[in-house]
Amino acid sequence: MIKISIFGASGYAGGEILRILLSHPKVVIEQVTSRQFAGQPVSQMHPNLRKKTDLVFSHPDELKKCSLLFIALPNGESMKYMPKLRTLAKKIIDLGADYRLHKQTTFESWYKQKHVNPGMLKDFVYGVVELHRLEIKRSSFVAGPGCEATVSILSLYPLVKHNLIEEKIIIDAKMSSSQAGLKPSASSHHPERAGVVRSYMPSGHRHTAEIIQELSAYAKGLDVAISATAIDMVRGLLVTIHTIPKKGVTEKEVWKAYRTEYANEPFIRIVKERQGLYRFPEPKILQGTNYCDIGFEMDTISKRLVIIGAIDNLVKGTAGQAVQAMNLMCGFPEEMGLEFPGLHPI
Amino acid sequence: MIKISIFGASGYAGGEILRILLSHPKVVIEQVTSRQFAGQPVSQMHPNLRKKTDLVFSHPDELKKCSLLFIALPNGESMKYMPKLRTLAKKIIDLGADYRLHKQTTFESWYKQKHVNPGMLKDFVYGVVELHRLEIKRSSFVAGPGCEATVSILSLYPLVKHNLIEEKIIIDAKMSSSQAGLKPSASSHHPERAGVVRSYMPSGHRHTAEIIQELSAYAKGLDVAISATAIDMVRGLLVTIHTIPKKGVTEKEVWKAYRTEYANEPFIRIVKERQGLYRFPEPKILQGTNYCDIGFEMDTISKRLVIIGAIDNLVKGTAGQAVQAMNLMCGFPEEMGLEFPGLHPI
Amino acid sequence: MIKISIFGASGYAGGEILRILLSHPKVVIEQVTSRQFAGQPVSQMHPNLRKKTDLVFSHPDELKKCSLLFIALPNGESMKYMPKLRTLAKKIIDLGADYRLHKQTTFESWYKQKHVNPGMLKDFVYGVVELHRLEIKRSSFVAGPGCEATVSILSLYPLVKHNLIEEKIIIDAKMSSSQAGLKPSASSHHPERAGVVRSYMPSGHRHTAEIIQELSAYAKGLDVAISATAIDMVRGLLVTIHTIPKKGVTEKEVWKAYRTEYANEPFIRIVKERQGLYRFPEPKILQGTNYCDIGFEMDTISKRLVIIGAIDNLVKGTAGQAVQAMNLMCGFPEEMGLEFPGLHPI
Amino acid sequence: MIKISIFGASGYAGGEILRILLSHPKVVIEQVTSRQFAGQPVSQMHPNLRKKTDLVFSHPDELKKCSLLFIALPNGESMKYMPKLRTLAKKIIDLGADYRLHKQTTFESWYKQKHVNPGMLKDFVYGVVELHRLEIKRSSFVAGPGCEATVSILSLYPLVKHNLIEEKIIIDAKMSSSQAGLKPSASSHHPERAGVVRSYMPSGHRHTAEIIQELSAYAKGLDVAISATAIDMVRGLLVTIHTIPKKGVTEKEVWKAYRTEYANEPFIRIVKERQGLYRFPEPKILQGTNYCDIGFEMDTISKRLVIIGAIDNLVKGTAGQAVQAMNLMCGFPEEMGLEFPGLHPI
Repeated sequence: MIKISIFGASGYAGGEILRILLSHPKVVIEQVTSRQFAGQPVSQMHPNLRKKTDLVFSHPDELKKCSLLFIALPNGESMKYMPKLRTLAKKIIDLGADYRLHKQTTFESWYKQKHVNPGMLKDFVYGVVELHRLEIKRSSFVAGPGCEATVSILSLYPLVKHNLIEEKIIIDAKMSSSQAGLKPSASSHHPERAGVVRSYMPSGHRHTAEIIQELSAYAKGLDVAISATAIDMVRGLLVTIHTIPKKGVTEKEVWKAYRTEYANEPFIRIVKERQGLYRFPEPKILQGTNYCDIGFEMDTISKRLVIIGAIDNLVKGTAGQAVQAMNLMCGFPEEMGLEFPGLHPI
Repeated sequence: MIKISIFGASGYAGGEILRILLSHPKVVIEQVTSRQFAGQPVSQMHPNLRKKTDLVFSHPDELKKCSLLFIALPNGESMKYMPKLRTLAKKIIDLGADYRLHKQTTFESWYKQKHVNPGMLKDFVYGVVELHRLEIKRSSFVAGPGCEATVSILSLYPLVKHNLIEEKIIIDAKMSSSQAGLKPSASSHHPERAGVVRSYMPSGHRHTAEIIQELSAYAKGLDVAISATAIDMVRGLLVTIHTIPKKGVTEKEVWKAYRTEYANEPFIRIVKERQGLYRFPEPKILQGTNYCDIGFEMDTISKRLVIIGAIDNLVKGTAGQAVQAMNLMCGFPEEMGLEFPGLHPI
Repeated sequence: MIKISIFGASGYAGGEILRILLSHPKVVIEQVTSRQFAGQPVSQMHPNLRKKTDLVFSHPDELKKCSLLFIALPNGESMKYMPKLRTLAKKIIDLGADYRLHKQTTFESWYKQKHVNPGMLKDFVYGVVELHRLEIKRSSFVAGPGCEATVSILSLYPLVKHNLIEEKIIIDAKMSSSQAGLKPSASSHHPERAGVVRSYMPSGHRHTAEIIQELSAYAKGLDVAISATAIDMVRGLLVTIHTIPKKGVTEKEVWKAYRTEYANEPFIRIVKERQGLYRFPEPKILQGTNYCDIGFEMDTISKRLVIIGAIDNLVKGTAGQAVQAMNLMCGFPEEMGLEFPGLHPI
Repeated sequence: MIKISIFGASGYAGGEILRILLSHPKVVIEQVTSRQFAGQPVSQMHPNLRKKTDLVFSHPDELKKCSLLFIALPNGESMKYMPKLRTLAKKIIDLGADYRLHKQTTFESWYKQKHVNPGMLKDFVYGVVELHRLEIKRSSFVAGPGCEATVSILSLYPLVKHNLIEEKIIIDAKMSSSQAGLKPSASSHHPERAGVVRSYMPSGHRHTAEIIQELSAYAKGLDVAISATAIDMVRGLLVTIHTIPKKGVTEKEVWKAYRTEYANEPFIRIVKERQGLYRFPEPKILQGTNYCDIGFEMDTISKRLVIIGAIDNLVKGTAGQAVQAMNLMCGFPEEMGLEFPGLHPI
């Protein structure tokens, strides 16, 4: 049994780590912090956890030592606290964006702010387990990837590695409202947000930087673009990725690339069926699960290879992926605590 | 480890039993039958179970002996097969309506059909565990209650037992689309069904008979009415129950009645808070869980006691409640396999 | 052509009046005010009006004289401005709650605030046209009824007037998010608000006072209770009203009461069909329309008469009803500008 | 006043034409046919039209002469009846796919069936008014374009005509359930269809053929691909079109192209704002309207021009566009009957 704490546990990501860890057989939750809700039971913010835990939020200033610390703060916050937090926890998994990008300049150009703790950037491993399993096992610091980056990287990695697609990659992402976090705003107001097909970011999505960073290990000159559309969905994320296959590439080769890389991956499923309603990945049946489902179709008329990837943005895209990394860092079975299969119908 | 089978496993209830039992540590799933999909993998109908099981549907005629059999057929079907099925399984849990009502005449009057196996009606225990725990433990035959009946009985039972409310009980039920099952129809067609607030049954709901049967053990002359409204929800069920408190009854006495009956119940939570967004029971955060959440409010202006009950119709209302009964019948811990806490946000 | 202005036009009610009046052949919109958005085009807040109007919000202090003024302010605001506004407009329709209740004490007890302009309470006619057509025609001041009150009063009025039901009336209301107005809050945050069946007010709804006031003209001792449940719907309102018919009352008499009162009403439809998907009133097909659809069912098992009423809360429940009153006050055909039939499917 | 009839009026497209024409001041609806519902009131299938019309469905065999006939049949049906129908109606607008493609071989290759009346293909004008206004005015036969084709052609036409983009065009379409029509199926079953982000057609969408046909008048070698994703929406359609601007093309030039072509178009709005929630086209506020809203963004990092187009698939994408054509063919003002501005919030 190891003692873990969650720094910033009142938000959606923190609540999801808490949900998963409360049924993890090897973990004791020591503290969960919230500046605003210190002293209140966690079920006040996470009503699904009623009767599951009596935990009460601690004030962040009262954080004690622990074996492993999850940090779930808004972007730009964790780098302020990191020098202190590393003295309290042997291992740290940071779910925010602050340590995902290896280069300070890349961070600063995409996030339009100064990095106040650039010295530690090199200490963090980028937390997509399927690409960095060994490094994560040996690491004390893991940066939890962005949800949009996670599903895009996993969908593209075998194709890029096996040299099957051209450089131009267009990611059309269908996004849910939980991605914007806990804080109400005009854009999250139900009468305005319900039923939308809102092109809130036709270009310029920050996760682009993570995708390029990770895939560039396998190909030069990638030109990656994201167009993000918010739809009426609370939890879930689907990407339709439009790529151009290299000349002569066959569907068989695409299958082979995915199988080679993912046949033994516990949380990746290739979904491409001839019949049924769920022939391709579908985020609604992934809610609560750590799966990344990937499918594809060769466009035989226009020269195109369309890849479809789906995740639960709060699980495989955030908290579940982080627990998966924790399992590796602590020597636990990789799937431990992440067995929920998802619901159907839902 | 016991061997169980599911007779009629291609529908929503059967799929949900399958989902729960696949992670139950004391159970081996022997066979799951489907006339229509015999020979096909179960993930064809239950796409959430991909990579969780390699089970293939068996033809119902090929059903073998097993320790416990779940039956998940449309109403009116299981009574035809029961004489044969009881020779194959030592214990049977039937999720349909055929054996819920103790009196043949009551069944026939509400279901407008003849009961072809009335001799076995007396063998079945009505499967609301909180009311019949001991009988279920000792029984070989359990009838899984209707979802609407389950939440209504659980919401009302302490009040009726403690003599706190008048005879007239009005249940205003908000229903989801999964309650109507797997079969497409004009009324389930998405353009017609999405966004509805459809008064599909202002009176005459069949589950009334179960509610009266169960509560009549504690009070005479109950007058129970259900008005059912379908809303845009796939999974979940909420009842707003309008009752009149007996003269002089206080909120404190209501609290006491619920605490007396439910303080030790693992799957019942009294939800009645002063602040927060989830002050009363809310089905959306119960999806996938076996909880029945119950709350209430004294109407101090109009003389009324409003009770609010929420469940996941497919879990506590169907498959989860059945597994809870199975755990009792087989001597397993009552909560085994039913630990999922539910998701938030969702 | 008359000149009208809207005082408080940036909210949902104001926007809806604007939408309706922009295609009204007898009206010129003179000014629409907004403190916060003064100087900006109205399409900034009402994007549906792009290319339909070049109107710009005026600051409320710049309001000029007009023939008729609509006021669409939060409750408790219009009474502060009324003494001044009545000098600017010959006729006033106030959509807020301030002048709906005839008695100062009733207002103050339900709204928990002092009425600062009680002298004018007697000048206002309660704006349900079907009950007060003649008075509205002759009046200069009309108070726009609450949406929940509108549909409940219209559903109940013929039954109470014709002495068909007992005093105890229970209104189970299914509410949409637009009823809470424009301002974001934790409870309107999409991840928390989407998919809910939220018992946000099991008792104590303020519109009760309006319903009692209006129906008490026809019966003594009415005991009216509302339980309000918010569902995942932006626009629309349905009430399921549970009543007890007086002894011996037949379905035929109920039909007769509705026909007697409503046969010639342009905006009321009795919806009670034997077949089809839309057998009873359904708010989704009323979006944008000024209809109030009413249906009912005799519960032959439990002694009950269930009435079902549906409206678009922003049209018949607010802006449309107000324009209907305006038409009467100005001598225009009552249906003018309110002809939109609604959409199907939607 | 002209007499029109609708051949095949029980479906969604037919119902929508009916809704629009019932308030069209220059049109009398003579007959509306339905084989299945002959003899029943149209409000049985189109409940929004209750109290708006007493029309009863006629059997198709009883169709009489009329000035203009709308045909709203499933694809592949109208070509069978056309030789007869042309003897009954002076003018015909066919909403199906049978006469959209000028070349028989193109039709047969995309629709996998033989064209049984190819001789009339040349008689039909493709009904996108903005591209073919003059021809439509003079024509007796108009083919109503596909909804997906309509919004894509309108979004792309100025860019192609002004030579601003490269040949490769990728259309990522977000689709609603009404596009699949009236007939229930497993894929339209609410528990399966609600909440989906379903990649039901990653490639091979038939409307591609129409888009290429229309745009090829302005550029050679266009390579157009559609990926279609169904989301939880009943009515509405949004396309995110990924294109590559020709070298040196500026945002200003894009603005200019759209303004040049569309400045005087009554039903096209360029939506591209710096602030507000509705900065780009949004189908939800277009429900019931004949608008096509178009916006765009230059991707300055990846070389891309993203175009966003939105319509109501049943209005501008089907019935509204057809009435717009009818207005031209009959010499009525082009906007007549199509003035509805849409609702907000919704």
